[in-house]
Amino acid sequence: MKLTIGGAFSAAIVGSLGIASDAFTPLALQRKPAFATPSGTVISKRTHVSIPLFSTIEEVDPKAALYTRRSRPEYIPGHISDPDYVRIFDTTLRDGEQSPGATLTSQEKLEIARMLAKLGVDIIEAGFPIASPDDFAAVKDIADKVGNEVFDDGYVPVICGLSRANPKDIERAWDAVKGAKRPRIHTFIATSKIHMESKLNKTPEEVIEIAVNAVTFAKSLGCNDIEFSPEDAGRSDPEFLYKVLSAVIEAGATTLNIPDTTGWNMPWEFGNLIKILRENVKGADKVVFSTHCQNDLGLATANSLAGALNGARQLECTINGIGERAGNASLEEVVMSLALKGDKQFEGGPGTGKLYTAINPVHITPTSKMVSEYTGMICQPHKAIVGANAFQHESGIHQDGMIKNKSTYEIMSPESIGLMRGDAQSGAGIVLGKHSGRNAVGTRLKELGYVLEPDKLNAVFARFKEVAEKRKGGLEDEDLEALVVDQAGLSNMMWRLTGLQVSTGMSGIPTATVKMLGPDMVERYVASTGTGPVDAVYKAIDQIVGVSVELENYSLSSVNEGIDVSFAAKAMALNQHR
Amino acid sequence: MKLTIGGAFSAAIVGSLGIASDAFTPLALQRKPAFATPSGTVISKRTHVSIPLFSTIEEVDPKAALYTRRSRPEYIPGHISDPDYVRIFDTTLRDGEQSPGATLTSQEKLEIARMLAKLGVDIIEAGFPIASPDDFAAVKDIADKVGNEVFDDGYVPVICGLSRANPKDIERAWDAVKGAKRPRIHTFIATSKIHMESKLNKTPEEVIEIAVNAVTFAKSLGCNDIEFSPEDAGRSDPEFLYKVLSAVIEAGATTLNIPDTTGWNMPWEFGNLIKILRENVKGADKVVFSTHCQNDLGLATANSLAGALNGARQLECTINGIGERAGNASLEEVVMSLALKGDKQFEGGPGTGKLYTAINPVHITPTSKMVSEYTGMICQPHKAIVGANAFQHESGIHQDGMIKNKSTYEIMSPESIGLMRGDAQSGAGIVLGKHSGRNAVGTRLKELGYVLEPDKLNAVFARFKEVAEKRKGGLEDEDLEALVVDQAGLSNMMWRLTGLQVSTGMSGIPTATVKMLGPDMVERYVASTGTGPVDAVYKAIDQIVGVSVELENYSLSSVNEGIDVSFAAKAMALNQHR
Repeated sequence: MKLTIGGAFSAAIVGSLGIASDAFTPLALQRKPAFATPSGTVISKRTHVSIPLFSTIEEVDPKAALYTRRSRPEYIPGHISDPDYVRIFDTTLRDGEQSPGATLTSQEKLEIARMLAKLGVDIIEAGFPIASPDDFAAVKDIADKVGNEVFDDGYVPVICGLSRANPKDIERAWDAVKGAKRPRIHTFIATSKIHMESKLNKTPEEVIEIAVNAVTFAKSLGCNDIEFSPEDAGRSDPEFLYKVLSAVIEAGATTLNIPDTTGWNMPWEFGNLIKILRENVKGADKVVFSTHCQNDLGLATANSLAGALNGARQLECTINGIGERAGNASLEEVVMSLALKGDKQFEGGPGTGKLYTAINPVHITPTSKMVSEYTGMICQPHKAIVGANAFQHESGIHQDGMIKNKSTYEIMSPESIGLMRGDAQSGAGIVLGKHSGRNAVGTRLKELGYVLEPDKLNAVFARFKEVAEKRKGGLEDEDLEALVVDQAGLSNMMWRLTGLQVSTGMSGIPTATVKMLGPDMVERYVASTGTGPVDAVYKAIDQIVGVSVELENYSLSSVNEGIDVSFAAKAMALNQHR
Repeated sequence: MKLTIGGAFSAAIVGSLGIASDAFTPLALQRKPAFATPSGTVISKRTHVSIPLFSTIEEVDPKAALYTRRSRPEYIPGHISDPDYVRIFDTTLRDGEQSPGATLTSQEKLEIARMLAKLGVDIIEAGFPIASPDDFAAVKDIADKVGNEVFDDGYVPVICGLSRANPKDIERAWDAVKGAKRPRIHTFIATSKIHMESKLNKTPEEVIEIAVNAVTFAKSLGCNDIEFSPEDAGRSDPEFLYKVLSAVIEAGATTLNIPDTTGWNMPWEFGNLIKILRENVKGADKVVFSTHCQNDLGLATANSLAGALNGARQLECTINGIGERAGNASLEEVVMSLALKGDKQFEGGPGTGKLYTAINPVHITPTSKMVSEYTGMICQPHKAIVGANAFQHESGIHQDGMIKNKSTYEIMSPESIGLMRGDAQSGAGIVLGKHSGRNAVGTRLKELGYVLEPDKLNAVFARFKEVAEKRKGGLEDEDLEALVVDQAGLSNMMWRLTGLQVSTGMSGIPTATVKMLGPDMVERYVASTGTGPVDAVYKAIDQIVGVSVELENYSLSSVNEGIDVSFAAKAMALNQHR
């Protein structure tokens, strides 16, 4: 006999308990084991994992297409031997941590840095060492550990520390990063009229002098990998930028990063800025140009790509696009755009125009989840690539297409970014909801083992439409099965929750009493304690259904991906306050 | 005597209760009164509200700059008298409602449509009438009501219904919208090789025939405002698009919408597509070209703007960028980009290149909140323009800049999109956290009425840094005040929570018992019931502190904007399941 604890069921529990009470569980327990890099473990030898899969317009079956990750040119500051190679500079730990409300512990930073190395980012900006002793310690720890964990292919990420353009900041940054195999100092000063006048209270000439002195000082410390950023370059006078940038190249800067600090530029405007800088800055061919685009108008990814189109060969970005205000360019968006379109749409700069990175995208999903969990910065369901809905299809027309051929509505496979689609929901990320057609419902039921005659399917579908109109979030497999069972008069095969009482508080032990009516029409009840009230309810139900019957399918939570995400965010948020 | 119930305090309550139990409160009670358009009210005369404020690079004080909204050219299907005017087509109620997990009631749709009219969108796509009787009824209701509520300046939104390219769909769509003053039918068929072969199983010739028949049929019903979309145009052969589009223009289509259905295009690629279509489609000058860009690579806004750069004069978008998978172009991003840069960066198409819309951006924030609440599709904190962090500044350097001049890090004022900054947090959206400097802390304390001597400020600042390192989410005013009070040995002026017990369940009434130690060192306790366990706790605390002392400041919740958002989302999600 097949027993199902169905959707309406779990919804009742969830609804009356406000499931989020999982906030009681210590955060550590809520973390997926996948993230649990043992604290302080030193990994001396690391290898990149297998090649991910891609779907592109040419291939009918996304799984048939192998994406061949090309090898990474040797790292030399200020020079890339292959002009088509684009360096990925991740600043999740610096600009990302500046997200209002996000604060990471040193241990969390170390774990994220290790994940970024697995992902294969070329440069990790680990923090702003002068900001606080904790910041310094975190950067130093990452430099000493992750900055020395060399992969089989010789790859080890550059570890970078940020500093304002003064000796004290720079010295502190250098002390933090110098233990890495490849240390970099990133120094900056603002160059826009409004910043120089209102914030710095300096003349343009003074700003040039400060910039040159900063780079010279960094070099004098023994650092040969120096990045310089003219802050607010997107609103700076290009003629002034030529002067500043030419001067810092002469002083020894090897990477010139062009920040659109306030997210002010249109993509073609920012692309053109990169172009004219490369044409007019003296010594431009001796350095790598870089982009750093803020997202105030939602254009950070587009602007970064426009930079690459015009010859930038380092793109700064963050996981999930977090950062000050509306955040930064999303690493996953930038990287997947280059992976899908890099060889077709980027002609015009140096090289052949067939751009590529060495990022291994299969690590994108776990990295995204780790960053969102540790920082508390959730992704909206419709966040590109890593949002809970990014590979979900709702309308009947889209679902029909997905069943016939996944490439109709997907330009990459979820597996390519490390998201396993599994067998659930027609294997096609289809949400069965009010917009779904008979084909999608019938297909899913077949997969669940219910081959229905047309009349029966029509009856189930009619009932499905009624329920779906009212049910936000769509129907789960259990709900679908319940509809079939209802039609067959088999509804007494289900367990029903008939009573629930929960008690919890500051000092008491969370306790739940649960009463359930079994498929044999016998009512059972039990009390249980737990780490939190929901846990207590789960344990009580476990006890009731676990001893008396054999279960084939037992699902308590009918919450969907999107809701899970918000739960996680909330639980962490509460944890932060304690 | 000033009494404060501080941050640590409320955090304890929130933490131990998992505040999300607010899910108990009926959703209706949780809605802000601001949204509560009285059900069914017919508004016969409507006026646009006052002119919003803008900050741009030129102005030092954002509040000094008045943005003059230009008047809207008369609405004529297929023609815009001013070639610089860009129509905004909102599809929140159609593509947006296709967000996996989002389902709107007819009443919610009507309220959103009214809000879109206040915002001033030119066209409201109200739904897909054939999809279900509820969908039909909702579109008809909007057409009959909002489609007839003419504003003082003659503006009334076009009401549009979607239909596949077959007579049954089209007839249903027409029946739904024809009651509007300005009804439009939007019909579509896919034109990419993969869609025609795998999904439609039609030859290109058959597709052209179906498209032409659909437009001809729509016209035969008496509709003179017909939009046609070649689905998946972003992956279609341009030569084939020339043929289809030329044919439908001849048949009577007045708007040609070019969808990048799978979010496949780079901005310059999509811009070029619009350009070559305008150059090669016969009769292109007799129609309005439109963009519809999905966000799978995070480029929807950039692609829409690239379309405008190349002559598209209708941009399709949704509030908060919701929609299938990774969603659609965000109305707020598209509109604010044009508001800030439309007159500078869009030369090259028809007209003078000084583009503008008639959107009144001061309604953006309330509309965004309404849509996110009704659909359950939350915005991430770093969502551009409408995210909780979009106008928040975290790093010390940025906060210093904001205090000196807001234009250093803001390209538009929050007031311009209807977000009132208020006096909190230095009036500059500054989050005081671990990255904050002495200047920001001192400034905020001064605003709170604490003018401290340098020694005292140093001591408070040192303590602030210690607390901020550990406190994700930054410090609230109450926390800051607590630090000052601590330094002065006045900590016994606070209430302390000494005991808390909560009981709740399926049938029982949520009950809380709260014990508190007052500033007079007397312990009081009380039990209270509530609509949910958190509500019960709030009420109990209300009773304790309300009767025995006079309060100047009483804040229970120290959750920040971002967390509120996730709470709201969760509460709704649970509500959906009941």
